[in-house]
Amino acid sequence: MTDFVTETRPHSGETRGRRGRVGRQGDGRTAASDGQEATAILEDARASVDPALRAALDSLPGPMRRVALYHFGWEQADGTPAAGNAGKAIRPALVLAGATALGGPAARAAAVRAATAVELVHNFTLLHDDVMDRDTTRRHRPTAWTVFGDADAILAGDALQALALGLLAEDPHPASAAAAARLAACVVELCAGQQTDTALEKRGPAEVTLDEVLVMAEAKTGALLGCACALGALYAGAPEEDVEALDAFGRAAGLAFQLIDDVIGIWGDPRHTGKPAGADLAARKKSLPVVAALTSGTPAAAELAELYALPYDAGDLERTTLAVERAGGRAWAQEQAADHMARAMSELARAVPDPEEAGGLLSLAEFVTRRTT
Amino acid sequence: MTDFVTETRPHSGETRGRRGRVGRQGDGRTAASDGQEATAILEDARASVDPALRAALDSLPGPMRRVALYHFGWEQADGTPAAGNAGKAIRPALVLAGATALGGPAARAAAVRAATAVELVHNFTLLHDDVMDRDTTRRHRPTAWTVFGDADAILAGDALQALALGLLAEDPHPASAAAAARLAACVVELCAGQQTDTALEKRGPAEVTLDEVLVMAEAKTGALLGCACALGALYAGAPEEDVEALDAFGRAAGLAFQLIDDVIGIWGDPRHTGKPAGADLAARKKSLPVVAALTSGTPAAAELAELYALPYDAGDLERTTLAVERAGGRAWAQEQAADHMARAMSELARAVPDPEEAGGLLSLAEFVTRRTT
Repeated sequence: MTDFVTETRPHSGETRGRRGRVGRQGDGRTAASDGQEATAILEDARASVDPALRAALDSLPGPMRRVALYHFGWEQADGTPAAGNAGKAIRPALVLAGATALGGPAARAAAVRAATAVELVHNFTLLHDDVMDRDTTRRHRPTAWTVFGDADAILAGDALQALALGLLAEDPHPASAAAAARLAACVVELCAGQQTDTALEKRGPAEVTLDEVLVMAEAKTGALLGCACALGALYAGAPEEDVEALDAFGRAAGLAFQLIDDVIGIWGDPRHTGKPAGADLAARKKSLPVVAALTSGTPAAAELAELYALPYDAGDLERTTLAVERAGGRAWAQEQAADHMARAMSELARAVPDPEEAGGLLSLAEFVTRRTT
Repeated sequence: MTDFVTETRPHSGETRGRRGRVGRQGDGRTAASDGQEATAILEDARASVDPALRAALDSLPGPMRRVALYHFGWEQADGTPAAGNAGKAIRPALVLAGATALGGPAARAAAVRAATAVELVHNFTLLHDDVMDRDTTRRHRPTAWTVFGDADAILAGDALQALALGLLAEDPHPASAAAAARLAACVVELCAGQQTDTALEKRGPAEVTLDEVLVMAEAKTGALLGCACALGALYAGAPEEDVEALDAFGRAAGLAFQLIDDVIGIWGDPRHTGKPAGADLAARKKSLPVVAALTSGTPAAAELAELYALPYDAGDLERTTLAVERAGGRAWAQEQAADHMARAMSELARAVPDPEEAGGLLSLAEFVTRRTT
């Protein structure tokens, strides 16, 4: 339930979700060769999924259709058509890349409906998270609840979940039932992650353990990426161990992304992140490096805890940033991110030993974790 | 998305949902013979469904499990066990009675999972409706959002929808995919009904048409009853026309219930309804008899519109009640209820010509619309 790298790339001072931050730069450096490949994969995924996605949204009764089309960027608030910014389709791309890796083009074609279902689930969680978190901007536009009210945003989210699981129920593909069961279980995990996130935000900095934030980050960010990859494997008719390996690949890549994203949330260059320096520290976010620092048992941890107990003061930003660094938060997060990426690669190699065949999934994993480099 | 006859029977002045009202009396008159049969059917349904329901809820991660168990009345707010008041299971009973009517005991046994899924969907909508409507009491207890907060109540509802559709996805029964597709489509209709309801409440009394409130009542109350019956037919392996006939039966019975319920909301005896006299008029509800009256083009309609434009004044209650009656609202609602019940009976006879086999569905329909008599 994070808005993730592909969802938003804020240009200037817009409000953001607690865990939602950009994971790549908006400064043109994305034109690196691997980025080009990933961009092409994402564009192909968007082109494959959009007709099914539009058809699903068009099946909604009037007022909910409006909320949904607005949320996806296909309509303005007044119902007039919009250029569209439905996100970069990383999750559908993972479904299709997973299917391609294990079953070739035929599996990819068969998996379009599953890719659409995953995208619908993702957007259902975004609609609801924005209501709960009172986030006011998403994909550079006012969030749906600010435009249509809480009730309409909640109901549109509810309907998107139903559309997603309904699409799979109507899919005659032999993998559709297993895919629906897996996606439904993933929704429960996404909800649990969001539940933990909202609960942790209310607790004092000393009351949050590293294990809790890691589990939460995996549930909010890793689970749906893993599920997307697993659905691709299911639609390729892959054996259970390959399905599980692709799930583990997606989860690990998602967690690596979150770790890197959290590092950027503290040390990122405002010219690249589009956010003020230290925005996460100013918001007293219990991000992964912060909790690692707080639980490090170092003198810097004690200093950080003291600072975090006070309301934000711009004059303390440098000291706070340094305290996280000295307490080892940055180094820990970077090591963890590297570990998780290594884990992701190893899981991928297990299911798809041929690097040629694994290419799409590799490109996407590198794309979402680009800033490791 | 109504809390329906079986959900709440308030004893004294508790707050209620906009459309949620008791449809039967709490004064012992339910001991009529048909009521006894229906009560036995409902108890059997509860006994059949509860183990699967508990297992589904127990599969939820900790904090969401607590919200769900609290909502179902199986736990107190502090997590200690509660006697349990999960509602009267009218919807699961309709699934099981539909399966029995068209497929006998074997079909009934096979349909327990579908009955559980319907009950989960119903409760997901209750959790969300209570948040949106700011209702503070449900089944004689504080609503989940008042105890756990909006976010936890929304997330628990999201998870219940996922559990429901996941249960069907995991069901090896040949009807499970069709059932899941039908239930997912029903969720969209339930959401649309709730959306219309919240939207109509914001509009002036002159801006609401009778067709709108009828469509809304069918979506909020009829759709899930119809879907429950249809799922029973699907699990009995019934042909498509019988599935549709049972859906139409449930929808019509649900609409008849809502009409009767709305009549009681105005003219019901407070000793039986547990609500102050004229509570619906005091709340300026645009219930079916009120909208019928407002759109009747009679002099009484103009008087009612004037009264409804003003804040409630207890001194005007008698005049308001009389205006609805004189404008024909009561007679219209009673005729409509009778028409819908006749329609329900005719649909039922079409699918299940043998009155013996239709007995369970008949008893349940009579139970929910008891006050016609």
